[in-house]
Amino acid sequence: MGTKDSDLSNKASNDAAKPNIAFIGLGNMGAPMAENLLKAGYALSVYDLSEEATQRLQQAGASVADSPKDAASNAQVVISMLPAGKHVHSVYLGENGAAGLLAELPKGTLVIDSSTIAAADARMVAESASKLGIDFLDAPVSGGTGGAIAGTLTFIVGGSADAFAKAEPILAVMGKNIFHAGNHGAGQVAKICNNMLLGILMAGTAEAINLGVKNGLDPKVLSDIMLQSSGRNWTLEVYNPYPQVMENVPSSNGYKGGFMSKLMQKDLNLAMQTAKDTDVETPMGAKATELYAAHTVENGDRDFSSIMARHDSSVLS
Amino acid sequence: MGTKDSDLSNKASNDAAKPNIAFIGLGNMGAPMAENLLKAGYALSVYDLSEEATQRLQQAGASVADSPKDAASNAQVVISMLPAGKHVHSVYLGENGAAGLLAELPKGTLVIDSSTIAAADARMVAESASKLGIDFLDAPVSGGTGGAIAGTLTFIVGGSADAFAKAEPILAVMGKNIFHAGNHGAGQVAKICNNMLLGILMAGTAEAINLGVKNGLDPKVLSDIMLQSSGRNWTLEVYNPYPQVMENVPSSNGYKGGFMSKLMQKDLNLAMQTAKDTDVETPMGAKATELYAAHTVENGDRDFSSIMARHDSSVLS
Repeated sequence: MGTKDSDLSNKASNDAAKPNIAFIGLGNMGAPMAENLLKAGYALSVYDLSEEATQRLQQAGASVADSPKDAASNAQVVISMLPAGKHVHSVYLGENGAAGLLAELPKGTLVIDSSTIAAADARMVAESASKLGIDFLDAPVSGGTGGAIAGTLTFIVGGSADAFAKAEPILAVMGKNIFHAGNHGAGQVAKICNNMLLGILMAGTAEAINLGVKNGLDPKVLSDIMLQSSGRNWTLEVYNPYPQVMENVPSSNGYKGGFMSKLMQKDLNLAMQTAKDTDVETPMGAKATELYAAHTVENGDRDFSSIMARHDSSVLS
Repeated sequence: MGTKDSDLSNKASNDAAKPNIAFIGLGNMGAPMAENLLKAGYALSVYDLSEEATQRLQQAGASVADSPKDAASNAQVVISMLPAGKHVHSVYLGENGAAGLLAELPKGTLVIDSSTIAAADARMVAESASKLGIDFLDAPVSGGTGGAIAGTLTFIVGGSADAFAKAEPILAVMGKNIFHAGNHGAGQVAKICNNMLLGILMAGTAEAINLGVKNGLDPKVLSDIMLQSSGRNWTLEVYNPYPQVMENVPSSNGYKGGFMSKLMQKDLNLAMQTAKDTDVETPMGAKATELYAAHTVENGDRDFSSIMARHDSSVLS
């Protein structure tokens, strides 16, 4: 479960220096991230709408709060992992006239939002935080639920260098690679650039393998050749979309688990929105978005490598 | 210049066992490939329409022939490196009623065609060869003129296992990775699948970097993040399309050298033709083909990473 030896060995001596953390959002990603913080000796107060989710964390040693404000009442650091921009907006800035969490936090609180949302939304929250003397970081992750459980996530962070330096040891408990992408919003921008490219790689690799197979090539032989040639990419390295070419990947397990097609589509839509807002052309990304939009109609819950089925529906059986 | 120590040290003892080779087509790729064979101790008879090209090889130790037939008159192996399918057809099968080279070769001759042509054309020549008892291999390369000079090309070979085994030590003089992709035509199929995917990777990576830059990210920081995340691909590893992110790549040298956009477009067109002939859909490949077709109108002689200029023409200056 990814707890790191160095953290365990330091637990006794360092707990006193560790900030209290409020953790908001205990879904498939948030729950294991919070558990890794507990294992590393951080005192956690957690909040989620789901009682099942909070009970799980309570058993792991967290105290359970009734609201985000309650969770943050004794915290120096707030971490959130929420489904979409509207939830982040609601929690931090409030809605229907009610004040958000930012207004309740003392100056100097460090807020780390690991949700994947539009860069514009992240910048809006960061600006409000800044006016209140609160350090806000957008820190979306990649690595999926497997990475969240193992504590090997990649964090892509936007915000000030000072706030990044404060956040880094905490993020290092939950992740392996921690990048400072730039100022506010840069974490979200870098993540959607990466995930747009990933969608292009996956759709393109699936179609290149299919072209070879339909012309008599063995999918494994072709994959090996491209892996050692200029077609090399992450999907051929660790995530081949053709069944039985690699072991222990979703394509060899009925496209179960992994990163759901509908989540890839969400990220592609964010990339398209960002491109549109900033008047940038992304023809390859737009084509990948179109393919995933059609694919998710029936296959949204399957891993995103199931885009292979667009070319050959027999791979689903 | 890539001559390998093992070949040099074996030269004296092994020359007697080395087959005589006819080499047809001494362009930017063929000439350095032929030179590497000479350096490894093979006796070469060469043919090209260009006198300048044949003189260069003559100075390097080759004998110069007046025709493909003349070049092959005392050869057990024929290697060709020609611009397109029509030239391969003409040399081996003849044209305007004249017989081609195949009809002149003794049974058991090994023919290796390293041109990049349509798989259907390669299969047609292979079939004619087979009827005459001649072993034909399609063996297109990747690695460009740099790889040809250094003797580090990748050969992707289609044909019988027996013929492949005979060809392998000869190809190993000119290349580093030698793949047996399958039966006749499989080398061409695998190469165009790889190069279609490469076109997709390059166009997609250029556009992902541009989206980040236009949203305030540093191109090197974003490239580093994607390189260590799921956007990783060959172009980010060794061939970044954004100027000054990497040293010693065409993008940092005015997009000179490398692999010309018009050659990428040729390969993409071959992929599209193969897809059409075999009723296979390639939407990402088709989009990349469309982008390169527009790009080559003015930039055909620039390296194919100059597709970056589609988004930001200032990179050309």
